Amino acid sequence: MAEPVMTVSELEGFLAAEFPQFFHATSGLTIEEVWLRGCRVRQSYCEASIRPGGTISGPTMMALADFSMYVAVLASIGPVPLAVTTNLNINFLRRPAPRDLLAEARLLKVGKRLAVGEVTIQSEGDE
Amino acid sequence: MAEPVMTVSELEGFLAAEFPQFFHATSGLTIEEVWLRGCRVRQSYCEASIRPGGTISGPTMMALADFSMYVAVLASIGPVPLAVTTNLNINFLRRPAPRDLLAEARLLKVGKRLAVGEVTIQSEGDE
Amino acid sequence: MAEPVMTVSELEGFLAAEFPQFFHATSGLTIEEVWLRGCRVRQSYCEASIRPGGTISGPTMMALADFSMYVAVLASIGPVPLAVTTNLNINFLRRPAPRDLLAEARLLKVGKRLAVGEVTIQSEGDE
Amino acid sequence: MAEPVMTVSELEGFLAAEFPQFFHATSGLTIEEVWLRGCRVRQSYCEASIRPGGTISGPTMMALADFSMYVAVLASIGPVPLAVTTNLNINFLRRPAPRDLLAEARLLKVGKRLAVGEVTIQSEGDE
Repeated sequence: MAEPVMTVSELEGFLAAEFPQFFHATSGLTIEEVWLRGCRVRQSYCEASIRPGGTISGPTMMALADFSMYVAVLASIGPVPLAVTTNLNINFLRRPAPRDLLAEARLLKVGKRLAVGEVTIQSEGDE
Repeated sequence: MAEPVMTVSELEGFLAAEFPQFFHATSGLTIEEVWLRGCRVRQSYCEASIRPGGTISGPTMMALADFSMYVAVLASIGPVPLAVTTNLNINFLRRPAPRDLLAEARLLKVGKRLAVGEVTIQSEGDE
Repeated sequence: MAEPVMTVSELEGFLAAEFPQFFHATSGLTIEEVWLRGCRVRQSYCEASIRPGGTISGPTMMALADFSMYVAVLASIGPVPLAVTTNLNINFLRRPAPRDLLAEARLLKVGKRLAVGEVTIQSEGDE
Repeated sequence: MAEPVMTVSELEGFLAAEFPQFFHATSGLTIEEVWLRGCRVRQSYCEASIRPGGTISGPTMMALADFSMYVAVLASIGPVPLAVTTNLNINFLRRPAPRDLLAEARLLKVGKRLAVGEVTIQSEGDE
């Protein structure tokens, strides 16, 4: 995988400065690895996002998907604070276990105005 | 609009009993009106879901969309605690203002196994 | 409904000149009405697009949805031969009858670079 | 990759018998390989599906995507003539070249009532 335009620590610094509301010490989000056009991000387990039956809430997964896409875009084209999500399509394949979530984002296209990517989210320890 | 199978107060009782994690006194969610195959739901403004620029977070909107679809399904077929979302497609049309959000859900299809609907979310006071 | 930027006959002339491959005498497509940010288009019934059980093929419906969105965009911003579809999400609600199809497109957003709209397709005579 | 439930020749026989309208000698569709939960299918180049600029039409790609998903389902669970598509979400990443198209379908979930998969379509010879 090719070198990213921003490293993990550059990304962390940028996000903490620009988006302290969702990337802060207790948000439970960690950037594990980045590469050109992709990244792997962890959402640590948090009681508050649990749903009946011990599963993790849909909005928690959406937030993680959105965050990982944004990290993948930053890692590929550098700091762009004003990127916005225009469309998000989610297939919920199974209920996640009450464990950390790992998201892997992969950009399928990086155009001048629009990036398209896909994110796979799984519970830690699942295949 | 035809009569719903569950009234607003029946829905509130059911949700508070079955889903206290996301439907409780401080969740800011209010069911404003229900009818057969639809409903209107309010998410009151909450500082914690604000994003840079004063806009409301995507996951807050997703949670509201998901909640309003579930209310519309309950209002149409009665209490089904195990309904799950299989697919969610969101188009973000503009950034919401820092005000209450109103969601109107409308079921397009209620099959034996699958319901399909659409939700429009707007800031209070917008046309 | 506000006045469109192009009339039905201007649209027909433009489409026949620019896209003779899919808008021609035997394509079965008719623009029935246009307005600012929307239109209604007919696909006449055609044996070749029939599927087992007498229903109309998915690709025929997709082509109609795509065409009606394009007509709605042209009617709203004038002739733009190079508009491309970036994303298309289709919910198939029921099998269409072997009759003419009517599509109504409605633009939800017309931005500088991206338009978002929705199309409802039904068999003629259905409510 | 695990063994499919139906072989290529069993699939061809089933499709030719059940869906002669879209799987016949001149449809240009070939099943190249199948495995449990996936397949690779070819749509041979056809002048009639060309769009301005030499690209292949969206509906042709949609038909190929839908066909490959159906083949992947059949290869995984055996002959089910009544499977229907409930939702289809397409991202158009770039204009295809005027060459054969190759589609690879991969099932992400095969539930009792709903299968979810993804299809990648590319022009022959592209990476």
